[in-house]
Amino acid sequence: MATTTKSENSANPTTTTPTTTPVTVIGLGAMGQALAGAFLKAGHPTTIWNRTAGKGDDLVAGGATRAATAAEAVRAGEVVVVCVVDYDASQSILEPLAADLAGRVLVNVTSDSPERAREAAEWAAGHGIAYLDGAVMIPTIMIGTPEALIFYSGDESAYKKHEDVLKSLGGQSAYVGADHGLAAVYDLSMLDFFWTSMSGLVHGYALAAKDGVRAEALAPFLKAHISLLDLVIDETAKEMDGGEYPGAEGNLAVELAGVEHILHAAERRGLDVSVLRGVRDVAKRAVDLGHGADSWTAVVEGVRNPA
Amino acid sequence: MATTTKSENSANPTTTTPTTTPVTVIGLGAMGQALAGAFLKAGHPTTIWNRTAGKGDDLVAGGATRAATAAEAVRAGEVVVVCVVDYDASQSILEPLAADLAGRVLVNVTSDSPERAREAAEWAAGHGIAYLDGAVMIPTIMIGTPEALIFYSGDESAYKKHEDVLKSLGGQSAYVGADHGLAAVYDLSMLDFFWTSMSGLVHGYALAAKDGVRAEALAPFLKAHISLLDLVIDETAKEMDGGEYPGAEGNLAVELAGVEHILHAAERRGLDVSVLRGVRDVAKRAVDLGHGADSWTAVVEGVRNPA
Repeated sequence: MATTTKSENSANPTTTTPTTTPVTVIGLGAMGQALAGAFLKAGHPTTIWNRTAGKGDDLVAGGATRAATAAEAVRAGEVVVVCVVDYDASQSILEPLAADLAGRVLVNVTSDSPERAREAAEWAAGHGIAYLDGAVMIPTIMIGTPEALIFYSGDESAYKKHEDVLKSLGGQSAYVGADHGLAAVYDLSMLDFFWTSMSGLVHGYALAAKDGVRAEALAPFLKAHISLLDLVIDETAKEMDGGEYPGAEGNLAVELAGVEHILHAAERRGLDVSVLRGVRDVAKRAVDLGHGADSWTAVVEGVRNPA
Repeated sequence: MATTTKSENSANPTTTTPTTTPVTVIGLGAMGQALAGAFLKAGHPTTIWNRTAGKGDDLVAGGATRAATAAEAVRAGEVVVVCVVDYDASQSILEPLAADLAGRVLVNVTSDSPERAREAAEWAAGHGIAYLDGAVMIPTIMIGTPEALIFYSGDESAYKKHEDVLKSLGGQSAYVGADHGLAAVYDLSMLDFFWTSMSGLVHGYALAAKDGVRAEALAPFLKAHISLLDLVIDETAKEMDGGEYPGAEGNLAVELAGVEHILHAAERRGLDVSVLRGVRDVAKRAVDLGHGADSWTAVVEGVRNPA
């Protein structure tokens, strides 16, 4: 407050221009272009580079600088963001640039496993490169919006220093821990839930369709039910972390019988039931392990003890 | 409006007492007791009966009438609600009572398959019994609340006549069609989505836990993501009903690769992957059938064409 009071009601441009940071984006696929576009929009001097030519003309027209080489691109940025197809690709680009990257902040938002992120972090540490691994949780169209979620893990001081710059890519950016693998862990765990749910959604619609029920007739009830999930997500989390899953009236054995009903109805209608069979088998194993009177969270015992 | 205007500001009790209907509840398990309790609370004269004695003392203390026989119970009610373990049980109780049930409204909220509901409806039609099949979508603790959802299908005029009575069991009661199997179809389809999602939730938490991430740390992000599902439920419904699943950037082939990443990460961590393997196999079959450039909804082609 004290530093701005003096210039209130003045036109002093040094207090109204937001701080900018020179950034570099390596990899100009759809996501890389969206990231560079968001940096430009936020006013950061942006340098771009792509392994093959012919990409990023719109960005150059919008004020980005196209570097002639990857090394030149790296040297132009205080923060260097890499977004390529996988870590094999990112490491083949980055390894020859270790000396250029030293002292800069490397942010790798390439999707890969926690293990690959940790390997890359070791390599970066060996070369004096501040390293953050990022996981982009939203489609390109949402990049740069206040709702956009990107997970970051790794070098905390680098994150804190450049948090504003990184938030120009997504307002919901979240630093999740010093272990560089954690951004990928959060990514995988969320998408585990998401794609499994999406499979259940499509399967539920397909089941209803077999008896002539349109998806649009079912949808309002599913949305009302979804509002329950908010509570369930928290309750299940508490039980998971506590390692105790006390059952209420809707205990696992009863719920397992419900799943069997759904499975048989789907089978009788000629639908694939491989997902439901998995749901049933894991729940059944948890019941067999003695968790029939526990809550649904106890299926984690089936998850942790594969057949 | 016209009928109430006269008595406005008067103390005429005939206009302020809600209409009551004599109801009977057969089957006094936890759910049957909750239903009878909600009828009592709404002021309906309630008769109860259970195959084995010793249940319902609290209800009698609250004003319910205990019938000595099932036939006596049926004859006391204009609306007869049956809530027992399955349709074998309900038919064994109801079949000897066909003559007593004739001219009354039978509401069977026993959980079973659409096929069993349709069989029971045929039997009821043959005996002049107005028949509704019901599916209770909420735990006993929510019975009688404005949020409680119960699906009904079958005799529409019976539903309309007794809608207010039935809404005393659940404010979100919904009549879903004349086909008596439909309440069960809605039930199974919703729970297909729900239990599959719940499996994904527990699995996502288990995956995160393997790398030391507490469920409570992940939960806020899952809840934020869930808010996206609202939109997705509607979009997916439109594509299902239209039979076309145009892909955007996140097309099925790319999403399948994402599922493979999750599956491998879970496998490497020693977790059961039978649900994820089902998710992967069905999506892969849809891709193999030519839907790689379509949206996730296209996995329905894999669901409809089992291996």
